[in-house]
Amino acid sequence: MPSEFELIARYFSPPTDHTILAGGDDAALIEVSPGMALAVSTDMLVAGRHFFEDADPFSIGLKSLAVNLSDLAAMGATPRWATLSLAIPAADEQWLAAFSSGFLSLARRYRVDLIGGDTTRGPLTICVQIMGEVPQGLALMRSGAQTGDDVWVSGTLGDATLALAHLNGEIALSPEEFESAKSRLERPEARVALGEALRGIASAAIDISDGFVADLGHVTERSRVRAIAHLEAIPRSPLGLRYKDLPVGQRCALAGGDDYELCFTSAPVHRARLEELARRLQLPLTRAGRIEAGEGVLVIDAQGQPVSLRERGFDHFG
Amino acid sequence: MPSEFELIARYFSPPTDHTILAGGDDAALIEVSPGMALAVSTDMLVAGRHFFEDADPFSIGLKSLAVNLSDLAAMGATPRWATLSLAIPAADEQWLAAFSSGFLSLARRYRVDLIGGDTTRGPLTICVQIMGEVPQGLALMRSGAQTGDDVWVSGTLGDATLALAHLNGEIALSPEEFESAKSRLERPEARVALGEALRGIASAAIDISDGFVADLGHVTERSRVRAIAHLEAIPRSPLGLRYKDLPVGQRCALAGGDDYELCFTSAPVHRARLEELARRLQLPLTRAGRIEAGEGVLVIDAQGQPVSLRERGFDHFG
Repeated sequence: MPSEFELIARYFSPPTDHTILAGGDDAALIEVSPGMALAVSTDMLVAGRHFFEDADPFSIGLKSLAVNLSDLAAMGATPRWATLSLAIPAADEQWLAAFSSGFLSLARRYRVDLIGGDTTRGPLTICVQIMGEVPQGLALMRSGAQTGDDVWVSGTLGDATLALAHLNGEIALSPEEFESAKSRLERPEARVALGEALRGIASAAIDISDGFVADLGHVTERSRVRAIAHLEAIPRSPLGLRYKDLPVGQRCALAGGDDYELCFTSAPVHRARLEELARRLQLPLTRAGRIEAGEGVLVIDAQGQPVSLRERGFDHFG
Repeated sequence: MPSEFELIARYFSPPTDHTILAGGDDAALIEVSPGMALAVSTDMLVAGRHFFEDADPFSIGLKSLAVNLSDLAAMGATPRWATLSLAIPAADEQWLAAFSSGFLSLARRYRVDLIGGDTTRGPLTICVQIMGEVPQGLALMRSGAQTGDDVWVSGTLGDATLALAHLNGEIALSPEEFESAKSRLERPEARVALGEALRGIASAAIDISDGFVADLGHVTERSRVRAIAHLEAIPRSPLGLRYKDLPVGQRCALAGGDDYELCFTSAPVHRARLEELARRLQLPLTRAGRIEAGEGVLVIDAQGQPVSLRERGFDHFG
């Protein structure tokens, strides 16, 4: 069986582009560009919890980087470097080759240097740390929402959770519908270009990983404001629209995690710029609510009635 | 049961000292000091492999940071920031409180800001990433050893592995001996001050986590040189000296990991400075060999005979 060193050399030592020293020493060495703050985020993914143990390893590799890219997008940071730690039950080279290929395909696309990591034997667990640059003072934080701001959402919400609902037997999607929903679940698109473009435009931002209401709730809590959102305005895919008026569809749109779209707030003066930005990025940006004085998140239906929010965001220990 | 957010707030949100934004957002924000490179390292620790599942959680917390500090010490970097990701089978608050207390006690001692992390349910797994600063161009790398350099070792080698040999029933230590050896295993001292002081003095450095011969071998491989080490010169504790001439004692000193001392190379012109440094740090620094042209590591016994090195460094997949 190949040694840890051989596995790392074979699958996790791609060439780097903007790194002083990567891999093979006690630490990697990088230089942060002048005038830039370093944004640092980390996510741990556990088999059976964050992905199915038998899921396609290319997708697992891709998703483990994508969820971290999404965190940087929500800060308005440009991803630059990552480390990858991996516990695997056995040195299954076919699995490692596919996993590494998924991870590195996305790393190449975003010019992220994989600069180090750790490999050990253990229950399948992936820990990625991502580092990116954002001009000092321009990072998008959860705490910046202001009374009077609009609440915006990128893309569409709910499809990733509809895929899970299908897998749980709660709904029955056609094979084509399932494939499309599953790709949202397994291969999320991090909104990196959007995050960068929102510097100076968004007052606050977050990525939707716990669900729209829960994540918008993090913004209102940190910003000490209240958000009013309109159920009808929450952007859905053609598939999501089919389930729009069913409880499962509402739950997926309001409380479904795993979509990795951005939710952000912005002063109304920026509306035209944001519409222009949506055209440029070919990514729908939808105004779904507004920020008021107060606290919490209130969702209102087409009749102007508050929607009961028994379904709250996914909480690992809740 | 408390939520993930409550657990993080309670146990993993200490005040920070030199961080723009820590915790509670999609990413942390830090600023690297002008003229400094950022050294980045990560280690993943799995229960049952890197520590005993029932080990005292204070020690597990402390060790999970210590092994990362040791990596930075080996680069000559000053530790500044860390992230901590944790998969735990259940939200056992007593365990978390002790773990956090061990981790944070060491973080405070070295003024390391805990800036972020992730908490999830899963088989007990800890992933720490450490970031530190080192003046540009002064990092200690494995690749810098030169023909004619001395090979130095800090502290003493072998005690951590003697504790394991006792636990395996291979040797029988007295309760006092075991306690002292176990503290080397469970609460290693990272040689941070030594690493910083070696900038400009050491030509190469590594921390001894896989065993003296294996780790010195990483230096010779990267530096394309050969090392000659003297078995009799390898520094031992009073306990280690008792086992010095037994095979188990030789194995622990040559191939035992987990001591987290530094092994470094340095031109003979620096000997007096290193002896002075040892006095100042109150840490023995021992010349244990020299660097020649060639490749590999050769260990010679008191009779001048090569020592057979069937026991090689610990390799997770070997």
